[in-house]
Amino acid sequence: MFAPQAKSQRIITSLLDVDFYKLTMLQFILAHYRNVQVRLGFKNRTKGIHLGRYIDEKELRQELDHVMQLRVDNTELHFLRGTNEYGERMFRESNLQFLKNLQLPAYELEFKGDDIRLEFPGEWADVTLWETISLAIMNELYYRRKMAELSNFGRELVYAEGAMRLGKKIETLKQNPNITFSEFGKRRRFSKSWQEYVVQTLCQEVSPQQFLGISNTSLAMKHGLLPMGTNAHELSMTLAAISGNTDEGLRHSQDEVLQQWWELYGEGLSIALPDTFGSDYVFRTMTKSQAQNWKGFRQDSGDPFVFGEKQIKFYQSHGVDARKKMVVFSDGLTIDKMLELERHFRGRLLVTFGWGTDLTNDLGFQPLSLVTKVIEANGRPTVKLSDTLEKAIGPRDEVGRYARAFGYSCDFSAPPVY
Amino acid sequence: MFAPQAKSQRIITSLLDVDFYKLTMLQFILAHYRNVQVRLGFKNRTKGIHLGRYIDEKELRQELDHVMQLRVDNTELHFLRGTNEYGERMFRESNLQFLKNLQLPAYELEFKGDDIRLEFPGEWADVTLWETISLAIMNELYYRRKMAELSNFGRELVYAEGAMRLGKKIETLKQNPNITFSEFGKRRRFSKSWQEYVVQTLCQEVSPQQFLGISNTSLAMKHGLLPMGTNAHELSMTLAAISGNTDEGLRHSQDEVLQQWWELYGEGLSIALPDTFGSDYVFRTMTKSQAQNWKGFRQDSGDPFVFGEKQIKFYQSHGVDARKKMVVFSDGLTIDKMLELERHFRGRLLVTFGWGTDLTNDLGFQPLSLVTKVIEANGRPTVKLSDTLEKAIGPRDEVGRYARAFGYSCDFSAPPVY
Repeated sequence: MFAPQAKSQRIITSLLDVDFYKLTMLQFILAHYRNVQVRLGFKNRTKGIHLGRYIDEKELRQELDHVMQLRVDNTELHFLRGTNEYGERMFRESNLQFLKNLQLPAYELEFKGDDIRLEFPGEWADVTLWETISLAIMNELYYRRKMAELSNFGRELVYAEGAMRLGKKIETLKQNPNITFSEFGKRRRFSKSWQEYVVQTLCQEVSPQQFLGISNTSLAMKHGLLPMGTNAHELSMTLAAISGNTDEGLRHSQDEVLQQWWELYGEGLSIALPDTFGSDYVFRTMTKSQAQNWKGFRQDSGDPFVFGEKQIKFYQSHGVDARKKMVVFSDGLTIDKMLELERHFRGRLLVTFGWGTDLTNDLGFQPLSLVTKVIEANGRPTVKLSDTLEKAIGPRDEVGRYARAFGYSCDFSAPPVY
Repeated sequence: MFAPQAKSQRIITSLLDVDFYKLTMLQFILAHYRNVQVRLGFKNRTKGIHLGRYIDEKELRQELDHVMQLRVDNTELHFLRGTNEYGERMFRESNLQFLKNLQLPAYELEFKGDDIRLEFPGEWADVTLWETISLAIMNELYYRRKMAELSNFGRELVYAEGAMRLGKKIETLKQNPNITFSEFGKRRRFSKSWQEYVVQTLCQEVSPQQFLGISNTSLAMKHGLLPMGTNAHELSMTLAAISGNTDEGLRHSQDEVLQQWWELYGEGLSIALPDTFGSDYVFRTMTKSQAQNWKGFRQDSGDPFVFGEKQIKFYQSHGVDARKKMVVFSDGLTIDKMLELERHFRGRLLVTFGWGTDLTNDLGFQPLSLVTKVIEANGRPTVKLSDTLEKAIGPRDEVGRYARAFGYSCDFSAPPVY
């Protein structure tokens, strides 16, 4: 049975309650970009919902302040030091020492009318963990408030609805043993305790041949699961921003991401995320040996069917057998979409899923669309185009410059700006 | 507040709920003695208490059977793989794989009148973990029965008494910051949940400069503590038993233990346990370079003051500065004895303590004196003399032979036999 957490308990109680990819990226940052100054910015993309109306400033500060008190403990260091599923001793001792000493630095918080400005300035390595931590806090405070508006029984019904929906998904999973997935829902979870309930239930009900792992490092540790994740747009965006003023520099920065990542982790973590400036650019420019060596791609925006077809063509153009290469779909999945995608690409690509919000925040409420991104690096604004207009961010002139540099064909004259 | 475990919960729920030394010894066994056949035997040394009167055979079988279902999980493997406090990557991958696949083999159990015969035959590496596991099970079943004889309020008073006694110890510790110790009380704990309560309280109340670590691997992992321990009599006893019929072989086997241990772990785990066949033998025969290299000794039987003085003389005879060498007292400690010993040896040896039964089983009941030892190796009976007559075990003629071989001067003509 699900037991909701007491309201008095803090939302984040461990610095490893972050996506595993934060830790793999942290090593990348420490290896090459130790002194880059960045600013992470929180952004609510949910139309019609103004978080300042739901979240209490004092409570938010309490949660954020509490995170600043946290330290990585000895067992957590053991867990990371002992991680060798993606390569022997993948966390270097010097980086474990960095983590041992890490204290998340101060945030900037301002309630502006109904909106909330929350930013994290500092050295990249110091602030990067704030990303998924700030998202989980915002989500949980928002839903706590939504739940507080209900009666006791009303809340019970919410959990009952959540359990029913989870039950249906599990039934479908059991009927479709071809579906394999990892739980990627930390950042947009309804609450910490609900995520834990979902994960526990999946452990009990779904075969480990289907439920492969989890992005949440703490929960991986707690439940003996495989921590999952490679990297995020953060790398591409930051490296592009600090690359200088030339189109050549922009393009070169993206080759760097792939090369330096490969140097650091080799095949173990070789799932590329190509859509930061349009996947077409990456499919066009990745080399034959990269096509051969890298395990595959993660799809995170645009039409997943179109993406998969492009990925197959990419392999064909390099004479690589696509059937041995992986696609990890991770964009707004539902069980039905997963079934469709798996059927469509079965036998043509190795298909697996990073299943997030729909797993950990499906109790009847509208999920929020929140992001915390690097918005500035060494004083330069960052840009993301992605494979879908709605997800693009950055100042308009920079977006235009990036689009030209990467040969991106969409029309960016209208919306996407922050 | 302490919350006792539900009776329906199993006593052992993880194969790492064992002393850390079992795992360091397991590596030693796997490296050199993979195929030695042994028999572990449980023995109740408590005078006047017949366990068969207190422990129900069916319940005991349920607990033991449950242990046979347990497997080391992924997080536990990470924890061990990540253990580098005593040397880089001290657990070899092949041995972690052994642990991953380990299932404890069947036991032999027989209720004979009021006594219980419990033995574990099999390959040494397969059965060795049964030692501290069987002890914890026997203890907890016995004290559950004792508690069942009380009223609800009677039980509350037991826990209140336990808390008061623990509180006094903690107060004394705070007043004596020179005292450093590790918690060694897994094998004779009152119950799993009481040990956990004690450990949690120590974490909260006692500085990590005093509370250095813990022998229980699971609890080290759960509380971010340093797992503590090196080795036990098991190595000396087994190697002696399989050494053949000559006195020379017996003596040589003990040199082997030290040499092979050093080869495996070097300085990291170089705390010798010298008393298996009388500490005098070891003090007489350890070489100058061993005296220089090894960190120190654990004292586990006989008079601790006499032992410490002998240890100091041993270093003097080799021109080694005793003040830089360690003594770990671990035999039947109380806080008063610790204070006395620390005062006596302060500035002459580095003094620390392995504090067991008195920490985890001090609630007013008489502690049981239980052991599970290798009683047979490759068909030969084992022997232990130790520095005190009462702890000696083995068939009388073998005890005599060992005493002669190791130049042990005590009179073994009377009691110690099993």
